[in-house]
Amino acid sequence: MIRRNMTNGTKNYAKRDYRSVGTRPVRHDGIDKLVGTALYGADIKLSGMLYAKVLRSPYPHARILSVDASKAEAHPSVRAVITSDDLPPQAAYSRGGGEMAIRDPIIGSTKVLYKGHPVAAIAADSVHEAEEALSLIDVKYEPLPFASNLDDALSADAPVLHEAWVGDGLAADDESFSHHNVAAHEYHSGGNLEAGFAQADEIFDRTFRTKTVHQGYIEPQNALAFWSPDGQLTIWCSSQGHFGIRDNVAAILDISSSRVKVVPMEIGGGFGGKLTPYLEPLAALLSKKTSNPVKMTMSREEVLEATGPTSSATVQVRIGVTKEGKLTAADAVYYFDGGAYTGAPLPGAAAAIFAPYTIENVRINGYEVVTNKPTTRAYRAPGAPIVGFAVESTMDEIANELGMDRMVLRTLNVAKPGDRRADGVTNAAIGAEQVMDAVRSHPHYSKPLRGANRGRGVGMGFCRNNSGPASVIANVHDDGRVSLVEGSVDIGGSRTVVAQQLAEVLGIAVEDVTPSIGNTDTIGYTSNTGGSGVAFKSGWAAYEAAHDIIRQLVDRCALIWDVPVVEIEYLDGTVRHKSDTELSIGFSKLASMLSDTGGPVVGRANLNPAGQSGSYSANIIDVEVDPETGKVEILACTAFQDVGNAIHPSYVEGQMQGGTAQGVGWALNEEYFIGEDGGLQNTSLLDYRMPTTLDLPMIEPVMVEVFNPGHPFGVRGVGEANISAPLGAMANAIHSAIGVRIRELPMNPETVLKAIHDQSVEGKYES
Amino acid sequence: MIRRNMTNGTKNYAKRDYRSVGTRPVRHDGIDKLVGTALYGADIKLSGMLYAKVLRSPYPHARILSVDASKAEAHPSVRAVITSDDLPPQAAYSRGGGEMAIRDPIIGSTKVLYKGHPVAAIAADSVHEAEEALSLIDVKYEPLPFASNLDDALSADAPVLHEAWVGDGLAADDESFSHHNVAAHEYHSGGNLEAGFAQADEIFDRTFRTKTVHQGYIEPQNALAFWSPDGQLTIWCSSQGHFGIRDNVAAILDISSSRVKVVPMEIGGGFGGKLTPYLEPLAALLSKKTSNPVKMTMSREEVLEATGPTSSATVQVRIGVTKEGKLTAADAVYYFDGGAYTGAPLPGAAAAIFAPYTIENVRINGYEVVTNKPTTRAYRAPGAPIVGFAVESTMDEIANELGMDRMVLRTLNVAKPGDRRADGVTNAAIGAEQVMDAVRSHPHYSKPLRGANRGRGVGMGFCRNNSGPASVIANVHDDGRVSLVEGSVDIGGSRTVVAQQLAEVLGIAVEDVTPSIGNTDTIGYTSNTGGSGVAFKSGWAAYEAAHDIIRQLVDRCALIWDVPVVEIEYLDGTVRHKSDTELSIGFSKLASMLSDTGGPVVGRANLNPAGQSGSYSANIIDVEVDPETGKVEILACTAFQDVGNAIHPSYVEGQMQGGTAQGVGWALNEEYFIGEDGGLQNTSLLDYRMPTTLDLPMIEPVMVEVFNPGHPFGVRGVGEANISAPLGAMANAIHSAIGVRIRELPMNPETVLKAIHDQSVEGKYES
Repeated sequence: MIRRNMTNGTKNYAKRDYRSVGTRPVRHDGIDKLVGTALYGADIKLSGMLYAKVLRSPYPHARILSVDASKAEAHPSVRAVITSDDLPPQAAYSRGGGEMAIRDPIIGSTKVLYKGHPVAAIAADSVHEAEEALSLIDVKYEPLPFASNLDDALSADAPVLHEAWVGDGLAADDESFSHHNVAAHEYHSGGNLEAGFAQADEIFDRTFRTKTVHQGYIEPQNALAFWSPDGQLTIWCSSQGHFGIRDNVAAILDISSSRVKVVPMEIGGGFGGKLTPYLEPLAALLSKKTSNPVKMTMSREEVLEATGPTSSATVQVRIGVTKEGKLTAADAVYYFDGGAYTGAPLPGAAAAIFAPYTIENVRINGYEVVTNKPTTRAYRAPGAPIVGFAVESTMDEIANELGMDRMVLRTLNVAKPGDRRADGVTNAAIGAEQVMDAVRSHPHYSKPLRGANRGRGVGMGFCRNNSGPASVIANVHDDGRVSLVEGSVDIGGSRTVVAQQLAEVLGIAVEDVTPSIGNTDTIGYTSNTGGSGVAFKSGWAAYEAAHDIIRQLVDRCALIWDVPVVEIEYLDGTVRHKSDTELSIGFSKLASMLSDTGGPVVGRANLNPAGQSGSYSANIIDVEVDPETGKVEILACTAFQDVGNAIHPSYVEGQMQGGTAQGVGWALNEEYFIGEDGGLQNTSLLDYRMPTTLDLPMIEPVMVEVFNPGHPFGVRGVGEANISAPLGAMANAIHSAIGVRIRELPMNPETVLKAIHDQSVEGKYES
Repeated sequence: MIRRNMTNGTKNYAKRDYRSVGTRPVRHDGIDKLVGTALYGADIKLSGMLYAKVLRSPYPHARILSVDASKAEAHPSVRAVITSDDLPPQAAYSRGGGEMAIRDPIIGSTKVLYKGHPVAAIAADSVHEAEEALSLIDVKYEPLPFASNLDDALSADAPVLHEAWVGDGLAADDESFSHHNVAAHEYHSGGNLEAGFAQADEIFDRTFRTKTVHQGYIEPQNALAFWSPDGQLTIWCSSQGHFGIRDNVAAILDISSSRVKVVPMEIGGGFGGKLTPYLEPLAALLSKKTSNPVKMTMSREEVLEATGPTSSATVQVRIGVTKEGKLTAADAVYYFDGGAYTGAPLPGAAAAIFAPYTIENVRINGYEVVTNKPTTRAYRAPGAPIVGFAVESTMDEIANELGMDRMVLRTLNVAKPGDRRADGVTNAAIGAEQVMDAVRSHPHYSKPLRGANRGRGVGMGFCRNNSGPASVIANVHDDGRVSLVEGSVDIGGSRTVVAQQLAEVLGIAVEDVTPSIGNTDTIGYTSNTGGSGVAFKSGWAAYEAAHDIIRQLVDRCALIWDVPVVEIEYLDGTVRHKSDTELSIGFSKLASMLSDTGGPVVGRANLNPAGQSGSYSANIIDVEVDPETGKVEILACTAFQDVGNAIHPSYVEGQMQGGTAQGVGWALNEEYFIGEDGGLQNTSLLDYRMPTTLDLPMIEPVMVEVFNPGHPFGVRGVGEANISAPLGAMANAIHSAIGVRIRELPMNPETVLKAIHDQSVEGKYES
């Protein structure tokens, strides 16, 4: 893969005084979202539009014996019914990193693998008629035994989810595949593990468990599809990447990707859960059958029951340490729940698990296991919070055991630029050490915390971050403003952050830039909004597009003034002759002259830049635990993160606060509660308990700006690392408060009370 | 003004064998339009959308004494009412090429100037409630005397339409402005008129009259506007140029142009009538007041009564000729009806009036006169049909009088490249002579025509054509297809014609190009779809964008192969090393590798090209006239036109047929029938009589391909010249059939019978 990087001669803006970068302008989409006029996926209607609903499996695991839609089709309001017969046949679904299971998750063909798995869909004149007519579809199922959790799925007599995996020969290559429900295996090693453990004075071997949790975005999935009889399919929907939706839909429907145009609507949160299509292919097929536009939206129940949450997990870490606190060896084994098909973040976990530290001798074994639950999807810093919880809890135990300051222990082993990370990657210009220093020197770290059952915990977090192809078009208007079209869906304010980078180069006000997200036909291919990559890649593209504009403006002035291009320069929003001071023209004035001096000026840039660098985070959390009820109250929380050069500090701080809040929810309350029947029990946001403002103190963000030399403006992805630290920090705080070590999430009152009870029995806790 | 032209090193494709150019692929929008799934202006709906209707003046001329909207505002379904108070104040409206009257035409402030002039608008929950509530607005008028036609408007005691023009001092500079209803004056002269007439053996002095006619597009005007509280206004509408709509709306509302985004919808015909906004500013203001999206559509009655038709006119031509048929002098005076405000095509008429001929001594005086009718707007080859009717009829009289063949007379005086046109322009590489030759050598010209009351007429036509800024973006998809985004609204198939020019350069199939029209934010400024300029300017931009793609593909291969760029060439859709035959890769394969080799490839081009060239047309029309009823039946019609290099011959032929049909309608039937009350009487398409297929024979198109050396593919605008020739040709055919010369349009049964009667009385017609 060939990628641009900073050595290609890109000008480094690090040393400049910025005008736009680093300021806090009002976001371009702010007012629209504040007053409710922003257009989300469900806000567009078309003439002749139909509404569709999905018939979903009532069983967590069953064979589909027959689907009879004839009664539904005869209903006067029903315009079309689709079943798996309307999809191209599902190719054999392999494991071990093979072919994606692209069609059966959309509509089950021979089996359903979780409660909520689609079986059919109906388009009707109204959403209520569509919903009502679902009951007219007669599906005959043969219910099968099911496995809702890792233990059940890995037991010797576990039900077989994917028959093709039984005896598929993979076991011969990799022992891990000897169990029929293991979908993937991730393996890394470095140094000499045995020798490393031999150097240790103490070895800590601990096992941790986390539950399935959902991203909890506010906006349910939606899709409006119109499949023209000429073969062009247009989809309006909100997603984290309309090019990804396009390519997925094209693969599912077996059509060429450019036959699909996806129009990105505003998105009400994604956090990794809106990278793949659910409704889009169904709406498309129903539109094809009816020749009408078809709209679909999910209820909250459908979102929780049938979109992808992140993995539940079991993580075992074994860490060897000298009595001076030097980590000599680390060995990790983790099992991630992939849900019905596969999507567990094994590589992200491997990158993150020991990332804050450099450990010479290390081994990682990660396994993905299928269960009868909705297929796992990414969730902010995928995999990192789970393994971070395990390692950061263990580090706390080590510090306590050795009697060392918790941050001194960490700093002693801190990962530095150039070191080898446990998954084999060489650290770029990372800021782990700066974050640790910031924690240690922050008043919160040393401030006395008085009172019974109160404690303070710290924990580190990490996300490796990503880049990818990005495309930007920038149209210069004759009133001196610029329309910036980018390919990155904006979830957290990135359109403004990208616009700031354009404005910085052009020397104009960011308010004079109107950013928007192009559809898949109007802008070049741009990878998903994920991996905290947008400010990095699309910001870089904006930087290049601005320079492309400048080149054209200089050329234009050379023509107007009839002087050689080399005698002209662009500085602070003005084209000027280097020596003749008479020849000088401001951006806005020149903009008004473009059409009459050769035509409009449009800047463009398309790249796939390298140079992104991981981000480190940390939390200091103070809690008070009520030993009677088990309730944990958060007294104070400080969030640290190395954020590169913060282009828009307010949004960076917002990311840090948001990620911390989600980490707190994961730590304390959130879980998929699966009932005896294998179905999700808590299918509303009343029962699926995310933190509200009443549950949280003010989260104080501390930005640690470690400039990324791999980006023209020093950008480092900031969207994810922040969710990772709170899980371990919270467990450590609870331990600090009441002396009880909890290795299982969520640490809700029930868990806490049980831990108090169990450890009282073991003599570890004195009430 | 600096414009690119062919001397800037653009490669001329004239000599190549084309693969795509000159073929007849199915248009990309064809199926959608055929089956009714294309999205026109009225097809988009938004959540919370309101509907609005316009209250219009019942008087052709009145002072507005008061507007009381309080009752309407109190109506429970009414969400907002706007009057002229909601618009920025109307600046003083000057004549003589001064400031545009931009606001009063949208809503009358102190006066209404025609029946149908907007006075207020109401947004309500439904269109019916909006319509019903209009009657609750209490407007007090003082009716004023009105002038519905040129004679009334130019009479000494004519009513004053624009008070500011009385005594505005313009009369001192130009005698023509001594009448208070003269809005503009166009003047050209060349040679020595007196000397020219002195050389003539005969002088023909004739006067012609034409009526107001409408473009008759199928789709009524529409607008959906959403003015976000953050100040960004988005408008969805169909138009002939969304940038023009944007700039007009911004000027009317006194906001910066880039604060308006116009999304172009499919358009159901424009012909010059959809260049300016009618509903857009109203919908915008109502949206601003309500914070909801507001949709407006016109009824057919509103379209005819309150959008801009083209001028009625009086044209006097005086032509001097030797007995050998040499035109020695020509003098023209024409009065065009501008309607309430101004928009009559004086310059287009001046360019066209004598364009087929080169006359050394020439003078043109054109006048625009305001009347109490809707403001005049452009109509296909603006001005040309009116003056062409006069000159071509006169040429027929001259030929008859001199006893010369009608085409021999014309050819003797034919305009040639390099000659001076009557309006002072030097002819480019025009094809007037080739068209005349094609007429003379066509079998239709010499085929015997037998039968009573049958006759054959010929006539020439012209349109000067135009260019303007154009912008194209071309995204290469990984499946080897290309999305082409252009700024030119597509009315007659131009997206395919532009795509063909891109495909030709890239060496790919035009079916692998998906063209679309970008909104005003996503594509660079592009001038209106008018002046038959799209295939020329946007085609050229596509040509340049394709070359921009090729440059990037070559660069990419240089990187992949690690060889110098100069050693690589692009030929027939393949990048190849000039000498190493191993190194060769097809477009489609390379497209699939782009993201991983540096990023996507997007081509772009922005230009304002010179080099467009006028187009000539001709008709041969055979008719039979029923002397009892006055009905004219068309027996045969052949249409000729110099079309440059026909990029898509089917669409060129379609333009020729369509333009001819409209010219026939203008000649025989169409007219604004104004009643005693000053209002339009024929406000439906039953009463406003356009030709149907039953009225027309097969129109045989004969393309005369005179390559335009001023364009890389030899493109010449073809959309307009074709409407010009039928008017004179029809009058000449009728004269040929029954010996009666009609100098007044429309030549409907009433006119024909009256002419027969008048000329029988004069002894010129023997029944």
